[in-house]
Amino acid sequence: MKHRIITISREFGSGGRTIGQEVAKRLGLPCYDQELIERMAEESGLSADYIKNESESTSHSSWTAMAFPSGRAIGVPSNQDLLWSIQRKVILELGEKEDCVIVGRCADVILENTADLLKVFIHADFEARARRIVEKYGETEVPTEKRLREKDKRRSMYYQFYTDREWGNINQYHVVLNSSVLGIEKCVDVIASLY
Amino acid sequence: MKHRIITISREFGSGGRTIGQEVAKRLGLPCYDQELIERMAEESGLSADYIKNESESTSHSSWTAMAFPSGRAIGVPSNQDLLWSIQRKVILELGEKEDCVIVGRCADVILENTADLLKVFIHADFEARARRIVEKYGETEVPTEKRLREKDKRRSMYYQFYTDREWGNINQYHVVLNSSVLGIEKCVDVIASLY
Repeated sequence: MKHRIITISREFGSGGRTIGQEVAKRLGLPCYDQELIERMAEESGLSADYIKNESESTSHSSWTAMAFPSGRAIGVPSNQDLLWSIQRKVILELGEKEDCVIVGRCADVILENTADLLKVFIHADFEARARRIVEKYGETEVPTEKRLREKDKRRSMYYQFYTDREWGNINQYHVVLNSSVLGIEKCVDVIASLY
Repeated sequence: MKHRIITISREFGSGGRTIGQEVAKRLGLPCYDQELIERMAEESGLSADYIKNESESTSHSSWTAMAFPSGRAIGVPSNQDLLWSIQRKVILELGEKEDCVIVGRCADVILENTADLLKVFIHADFEARARRIVEKYGETEVPTEKRLREKDKRRSMYYQFYTDREWGNINQYHVVLNSSVLGIEKCVDVIASLY
């Protein structure tokens, strides 16, 4: 019997993580987001901070570093390739273990053949996302618009690079919701009702 | 007070039309689909058959005819441009008149500034769509796969040509549902609950 898993992909600032946590709470399921990084740290012996900085979730490094990490050109596995394989292993293990909610990290593709998935994508209007990241993470020296565009670009390239799919393409998801129009609460209702 | 209107865009064979009709029935709203063609016929004095054959919904003409209709090159309005302007007028009038469900015909863009919209896109897995169109419309000489691809391409080009937006792009919709994974009934539930 395959485990039933909700995967939540999301634009930066769309509230996708919050929605994932609320859905998990509502359904009494564990939610894996930050916890994935801790598991990857355990698995690899690397520090959680290092993993956070070097993997998908970083907002500091330039996206070109993802496409052309040092070493890849000469055939040496990059640190990103290493992190990808640890991430894949941790997510596959979760898929074998239990029903849950997983936020981000290409879980929708990694678990495609091993779990019974509800694949969700959360997006939101640009202005709403800009407001949300300033409220949540504060202002930085980088202009808000640039932060949003860079993070989305990075997630998109990461997804495409490792899964060969197009991030945010309609055909990749079962449910796509605009959280700024529908509201976080309604998004949670819809996803929970479809599980 | 703006009218509240549900617009349903859909891939061919996804059951989007059925979903629109069921949502309308559930909410006690009128549903405009085939009825739009009748209104366009009334408005223009052209026959409903002519409108059906010449506008978005035809599956006969090649999609190049849409992009390069006779006349457009030398600056004469084409019959498609004429039909577009009638369609736009009819849909704008509906938007002024009542709460309703409208299937297809770029209503999501036409009514963007004049109604309070819930913009829905319905898609489905390719195999499910192929099965559905054969069940619903029967076999034809044209292979099923080709029928699907041509109709989608036509809808997509039509939408892009007249609205300057990308059909099926996630940012264009508030709710996107995969009807073959979720089922028609669940799609109706979700849309009705979000209205």
